[in-house]
Amino acid sequence: MNNKLKITFLGGVGEIGKNMTAFEYNNEIIVVDAGLTFPGDDLPGIDVVIPDFTYLLNNRDKIKAFILTHGHEDHIGALPFVLEQIKAPVYGSKLTLALVDNKMKEHPKVSYKAITVKPKNVLKIGAFSVEFIKVSHSIAGALALCINTPVGNVVHTGDFKIDFEPIDGVMTDLQRFGELGKKGVNLLMCESTNVCRSGYSMSEKSVGRALDEIFKAHPDNHIFVATFASNIHRLQQILNLAEKYGRKVAFTGRSMINITDVGMKIGEITFNRENIIDIEKIDKYADKELLIVTTGSQGEPLSALTRMASGDFKQIKIGENDLIVFSSSPIPGNEKSVYKVINALFQKGADVIYDELSEVHASGHACQEEIKTIHALTKPKFFMPIHGEYRHLKMHKQLAMNLGMDERNIILPTLGAQVELSANSIKKVGFTTAGQRLIDGYGIGDMDSNVLKERKMLSEDGICVVVLTINNVSGEVAGDPFIITRGVVYQDEAEAFVQDTKNMIVASLKEQDLRGCEPAVIKNTIRRNVSNFIFKRTKRRPMILTIVFLA
Amino acid sequence: MNNKLKITFLGGVGEIGKNMTAFEYNNEIIVVDAGLTFPGDDLPGIDVVIPDFTYLLNNRDKIKAFILTHGHEDHIGALPFVLEQIKAPVYGSKLTLALVDNKMKEHPKVSYKAITVKPKNVLKIGAFSVEFIKVSHSIAGALALCINTPVGNVVHTGDFKIDFEPIDGVMTDLQRFGELGKKGVNLLMCESTNVCRSGYSMSEKSVGRALDEIFKAHPDNHIFVATFASNIHRLQQILNLAEKYGRKVAFTGRSMINITDVGMKIGEITFNRENIIDIEKIDKYADKELLIVTTGSQGEPLSALTRMASGDFKQIKIGENDLIVFSSSPIPGNEKSVYKVINALFQKGADVIYDELSEVHASGHACQEEIKTIHALTKPKFFMPIHGEYRHLKMHKQLAMNLGMDERNIILPTLGAQVELSANSIKKVGFTTAGQRLIDGYGIGDMDSNVLKERKMLSEDGICVVVLTINNVSGEVAGDPFIITRGVVYQDEAEAFVQDTKNMIVASLKEQDLRGCEPAVIKNTIRRNVSNFIFKRTKRRPMILTIVFLA
Repeated sequence: MNNKLKITFLGGVGEIGKNMTAFEYNNEIIVVDAGLTFPGDDLPGIDVVIPDFTYLLNNRDKIKAFILTHGHEDHIGALPFVLEQIKAPVYGSKLTLALVDNKMKEHPKVSYKAITVKPKNVLKIGAFSVEFIKVSHSIAGALALCINTPVGNVVHTGDFKIDFEPIDGVMTDLQRFGELGKKGVNLLMCESTNVCRSGYSMSEKSVGRALDEIFKAHPDNHIFVATFASNIHRLQQILNLAEKYGRKVAFTGRSMINITDVGMKIGEITFNRENIIDIEKIDKYADKELLIVTTGSQGEPLSALTRMASGDFKQIKIGENDLIVFSSSPIPGNEKSVYKVINALFQKGADVIYDELSEVHASGHACQEEIKTIHALTKPKFFMPIHGEYRHLKMHKQLAMNLGMDERNIILPTLGAQVELSANSIKKVGFTTAGQRLIDGYGIGDMDSNVLKERKMLSEDGICVVVLTINNVSGEVAGDPFIITRGVVYQDEAEAFVQDTKNMIVASLKEQDLRGCEPAVIKNTIRRNVSNFIFKRTKRRPMILTIVFLA
Repeated sequence: MNNKLKITFLGGVGEIGKNMTAFEYNNEIIVVDAGLTFPGDDLPGIDVVIPDFTYLLNNRDKIKAFILTHGHEDHIGALPFVLEQIKAPVYGSKLTLALVDNKMKEHPKVSYKAITVKPKNVLKIGAFSVEFIKVSHSIAGALALCINTPVGNVVHTGDFKIDFEPIDGVMTDLQRFGELGKKGVNLLMCESTNVCRSGYSMSEKSVGRALDEIFKAHPDNHIFVATFASNIHRLQQILNLAEKYGRKVAFTGRSMINITDVGMKIGEITFNRENIIDIEKIDKYADKELLIVTTGSQGEPLSALTRMASGDFKQIKIGENDLIVFSSSPIPGNEKSVYKVINALFQKGADVIYDELSEVHASGHACQEEIKTIHALTKPKFFMPIHGEYRHLKMHKQLAMNLGMDERNIILPTLGAQVELSANSIKKVGFTTAGQRLIDGYGIGDMDSNVLKERKMLSEDGICVVVLTINNVSGEVAGDPFIITRGVVYQDEAEAFVQDTKNMIVASLKEQDLRGCEPAVIKNTIRRNVSNFIFKRTKRRPMILTIVFLA
């Protein structure tokens, strides 16, 4: 018992994509968010990446709650893996929990208790009392937190923006942030995604206006809108336009169909179901009577839109009368895939409108002036920037200092860092295990695994398998060595290559007396010889597997 | 003999990265540019990609010249591979040819004739006369072309921008473009890279001013500038600042050392060599007396800067007093790698300035108003947008139409397209072989090669090799099957996995009568069984190699 609040960063700092933070007071822990991220090409064959939550496993008896700020994958995606091993109730808004519920259907063996919360709710959880505060974001049902603790108030913004014209009519609760600031905020933890962007983020409603102009200007075209399935307010605006311009709506993409269904069921989306048609039935309508709402705005290889662009989607052939609107922007790293799809659509004769050409997307994250507003309203004693790469956190620290904050009152958290907060002090106290857990099919491995190194090596230079039998008595190679290569030589050279390699092996072994020789020694000799031989010939170093049988 | 000019697009349209266009009149061809591109993660193990130049090989006797607009890799990089098979003189500016010369040193067996040209030169090459026109770009010695042909003037801009304050004092020759327009330009071929950007590109000199401010504001820091080695004018400005602020200069990175050396030798860079020090000797100077000029601005894994960021560069340890300036912007696709290096440098305590935070980089490509200026000056009868993805070419066509051009006078070229131009007509006449040639170690393969498919498959799910001997008489498995996996199972599960797979194979084969059975049939059975077994257990489908010996 040291009467301090310990904050442990298991994700969401120093890299973006997966968020998880533990707040601990004496013997009680609440965990905010449990997100995942999708791996890049540097992790071949890995499906998803979640935080290493060893720390939670080691303290599993202390955990009183999982609190979710909103329903994006980078905030809820790790939940099935965590709940499999740790039992504690899950708190979130109606939409957030509906998305969790949808996700948990794929993990039927994992049971959990869900508790729905609303803005302004205050819940007592052990030593903490947690207040939920309405914020705008690119998904409905997003909440900031004020965690009241024995060492004072901690305001955690989650992901947010300040939208003066929110689609649901309820703004980010600036008044409450101000009220809390007036009462006293000991620590502010504020997101940093767009801290390098000056000014204010665009309002979601201005996207609606840009889309309206597009619908108005293209009364006869077959219109497609690609967007993020989870952006319920964007979808609501798009559906309103369909109604306004008398178009039936067909959804494509599994997540689009799932999430719109969930949204309508819980009343977050209002739309006349009679105006929704099955994608199989669009042939019955004229182009100008149709709107296709689709996933694939990130150029995902298997998405409906990518398949349409490559002519590989049976219900829809893209052509001259089609207008495709990307109501999105490429997530960093996806640029090439996105533009590939856009180019392919243009080449099929379609017209394409994307964020470089028109204001058809608004970010869900606060820009500099919005972030400053939150600092000004909450006037915290201490501050930690969260949710961003290290360069964002650093910039956010500078922003806070420019607003007059003392550098000594700011801590830049890094992955695994543990920070202790008292009523009048904050300091880093150490580090715990943290990092990436890779989910690969059914297995969970870790970053440094040989499996990944092997896959990387295989992908670059291929593999050569050599099998041979040695007569241990005569010391001679029995029969021909057997050689298979994959990913090493091009087809027209393959036969000569294999024959030459065989000859080289046989010739090199003839020089040695192999009688009574250890298989391991023979294997190493062959591996070295084959590797050098192939390198000379191809400048490649494939993986060499040698199997020696003694007869 | 049809008295038309045939233009064949072997690169530089519909995708960016490698440029090559053939201009053919009766029995004579001149080839403009021969570039390469570096492959993304979708082509594992491939070193570089060049255009498929089968068309040139099939017409090799007609080829009179290779004409280079400037010395960037995407315009000269394929030259060694082309000159290996086709003999024709190479024309370019002094710097362009110096860079070609440097490159050809790695191909000592390939001989070629180089002819240096200057702005305003007009050379007669067969039926053509080619005039070279000074343009600004992100490399010195860039030239646009006016190709005078029997069917009229063809203006080819190469890569260009309009810089009103060029570092070398000689502007893009707007007057000459105007003069040619006045005389009559039959066809304009204009680059499209930045056609989606409104307004004007920044002047190179404004980058110098931004860098000057940075040097002035950090008199005591150890300053590093990372930039593109080929941007000679940027380097000149950086070297001028070193002189102004009394700093010695050390270069790191092979291309930086090579190109600055070439630049100084041919007089394109002027700098007192006494102020250059070897990177090994920087310890003799104080931080404030030093400037390190380095490659690695794209986050290249093996570059000096990336190694400094990861603490893996022996001469330099990055710390608190270091200021690193990225005088560059990430090339699309490199964003993640670049920000990874920036984050790592920040984490080591250094200060980092990059293009998102300050105007430390200017693009070398014309934006919309500059492109319009060239259209207005040349007033061509016909127009083809070049150098860009399809979306850029499409946008450029729209720009030309907005300027009053008739849609029927515009052709959007695609890869392999052949276009015929007469004095008063232009039309697409067909397609020839075109695409990518992949250079992989010593081998040149093609895109659809199995090698790449195999590498991709290996990288995602790994490989499992099964070797077993079957007694053909008894029909029984002789001894234990032999199993090796790579990239399939994690270490702690490997032993049990291999044992279970062996047991499964033996059990499954016991059910069959294998006497006299074809090895191919047995192999297929085993492959299918093993594949299903592994899928059930790991949700992965590794490549299965089965080797069956009959004893």
